[in-house]
Amino acid sequence: MKTTGAVLYKHNSPLVIEELELDPPQKGEVLVEMKAAGICHSDLSVLTGVFQMPPLPCIPGHEGAGIVREVGPGVDKVKPGDHVMILWAPSCGHCFFCQHEQPYMCDFRQFTRGGMMPDGTHRLRKGDINIFNMTGVGTFNRFNVMTQNCVLPIDKDIPFEIAALTGCGVITGVGAVLNTAKVKPGSSVVIIGSGGVGINVIQGSVLAAATKIIAVDLLDNKLEMAKKFGATHTINPNKENVVERVMQLTGGRGADYAFDVVGSPQLVALGVDVIRRGGKVIMVGMGPADQKLDLPLTPLLVMEKSLISCYYGSSDMCTDLTMLLDLYKIGRLDLDSLISNRYSLEDINQGFADLVAGKNLRGVVEM
Amino acid sequence: MKTTGAVLYKHNSPLVIEELELDPPQKGEVLVEMKAAGICHSDLSVLTGVFQMPPLPCIPGHEGAGIVREVGPGVDKVKPGDHVMILWAPSCGHCFFCQHEQPYMCDFRQFTRGGMMPDGTHRLRKGDINIFNMTGVGTFNRFNVMTQNCVLPIDKDIPFEIAALTGCGVITGVGAVLNTAKVKPGSSVVIIGSGGVGINVIQGSVLAAATKIIAVDLLDNKLEMAKKFGATHTINPNKENVVERVMQLTGGRGADYAFDVVGSPQLVALGVDVIRRGGKVIMVGMGPADQKLDLPLTPLLVMEKSLISCYYGSSDMCTDLTMLLDLYKIGRLDLDSLISNRYSLEDINQGFADLVAGKNLRGVVEM
Repeated sequence: MKTTGAVLYKHNSPLVIEELELDPPQKGEVLVEMKAAGICHSDLSVLTGVFQMPPLPCIPGHEGAGIVREVGPGVDKVKPGDHVMILWAPSCGHCFFCQHEQPYMCDFRQFTRGGMMPDGTHRLRKGDINIFNMTGVGTFNRFNVMTQNCVLPIDKDIPFEIAALTGCGVITGVGAVLNTAKVKPGSSVVIIGSGGVGINVIQGSVLAAATKIIAVDLLDNKLEMAKKFGATHTINPNKENVVERVMQLTGGRGADYAFDVVGSPQLVALGVDVIRRGGKVIMVGMGPADQKLDLPLTPLLVMEKSLISCYYGSSDMCTDLTMLLDLYKIGRLDLDSLISNRYSLEDINQGFADLVAGKNLRGVVEM
Repeated sequence: MKTTGAVLYKHNSPLVIEELELDPPQKGEVLVEMKAAGICHSDLSVLTGVFQMPPLPCIPGHEGAGIVREVGPGVDKVKPGDHVMILWAPSCGHCFFCQHEQPYMCDFRQFTRGGMMPDGTHRLRKGDINIFNMTGVGTFNRFNVMTQNCVLPIDKDIPFEIAALTGCGVITGVGAVLNTAKVKPGSSVVIIGSGGVGINVIQGSVLAAATKIIAVDLLDNKLEMAKKFGATHTINPNKENVVERVMQLTGGRGADYAFDVVGSPQLVALGVDVIRRGGKVIMVGMGPADQKLDLPLTPLLVMEKSLISCYYGSSDMCTDLTMLLDLYKIGRLDLDSLISNRYSLEDINQGFADLVAGKNLRGVVEM
């Protein structure tokens, strides 16, 4: 069949919106009609080549939601007509990691990270050229084929754009708080970087009943947004000394937790400086691949300060995503306000320009 | 009164065994007749100046056990005749940290780390010169005065030398496993450094029901000892590639946990290399103050590998030390075999020479 997708042929050049050929789903695979896709900073990292995957040409996009239109043999998870959220980090259910409470580390993602089907073949072509899919799902595409492990059925009353966001930025931010850090009620929390993921670290901190939620960002409009989502205090490092202000807010002791949502060794070091002894820095953001931590070791030990890595909110996708949508339904999680701009697939390059310009909390492509 | 102690007048010079004057215990203080004291690597770090505390001249020694001989006004924790273990990291019970399940981070230790009484005065003198006490307890001394927070009453059937060891090396090693890492049954564990603390990481791993307990050390005699204490496998890096061997032993995946018991950035990096994705490096050992971590950040994030600091086994001294002595009594914790050599106070410099030469699992001074 034919589909229209946004293809990346070359790093740092605009996406090309064009017609592509798509093969039907094979064994264990599903055809999804994409209804919405989120524009995430990780997509930008694929566009710029900061993330060295998948091979080019490829369809970026890893947040999405849509309707199952066709299923291959052996598919038992969904049927045509089901509404689904796209899972960019699928879990197989039976590998070591799935069986040891770390399904977000599933062996299966080794396949999907390569941008192909698990058997190493492609379903998407432009003429004779095979097109790779970011994390095996490539959501900037009206139709796409993926393995059934990459979709999660959702209730039909959930808006597609909401489901699309929840599958990455929301679960990463909220999961960093609830799963990775396991923030305790009454805690003090510093969030370094108040963008699309940082805002959800703030929402997670509210859910965890943290009582000091301190947002740090260089942009005042993001700090305003942070307050709207539950930050109790905000700090703009251009105007105030972050360490001094956090100490002031925490009785001179430092915060219980700091989250680096940017992905920079300097901000991890800032996190170490703003936490109390016995505190934790949660490293959520992912930056360029060649960055190195450069931290004095002994102070970490004497103060028992730990550096906790967070991948995809340390989440069990199926249970956690269902929980998040339930929290949305009862009004405990604000997902509507996350969406700052909507774009057509044809306008997707504008969406990335707005992301780079810091104009978007979260942009969504409506197909 | 008079006492005989081992005084450090100058870094990297022998301890001087000599008679000192000791004032009686004041409010909230106790006079302890020391019966045994452990020679720990941290004492060596004080002797060499690697640890920049306390000021000189001082009495080193922070592991000890003895008998309370006199108590000052307001002491309600012990009475004369009680057998006690010395706590080098006392907890007050009412500061932020004591009230938030981190008594080993108690504010009170700020006082004792200075080597004086909490009120900033001294009880110990040589002529006109005040003598400082390592962590406020200075156990290489026949008699010493300390605050009641620094002693824990123990049953009279516990040998003093056993109690002396338990208060630092044992609780640090076992606590690193049970409290800091919370190792799960069936786990694979790599212990880098199989000295006095490393052996107790091994014993802790046995208690936690880890099923692969892999000891790493440059000395074959330490690896032999590691096996005796429960290591299921041993690796000498001079003879085998550590990463390759661990991968071989863990189905190519890497270990669930690695403990750096030495305190070196290179060994923390080795720990990162031998753990699986989603695994943890527990940083237990403390080396020179100027060492820096120098680690690529992105692989840590993509693999969700965390660096967990461990201070004093993240222990609640009172409950954990009592638990450890109970485990000793029922034969689940081998503390007797930890003692490789006994010294008189007069021979203490030989004890340090043996420690430096790698001859001692743990040397004990009997007073």
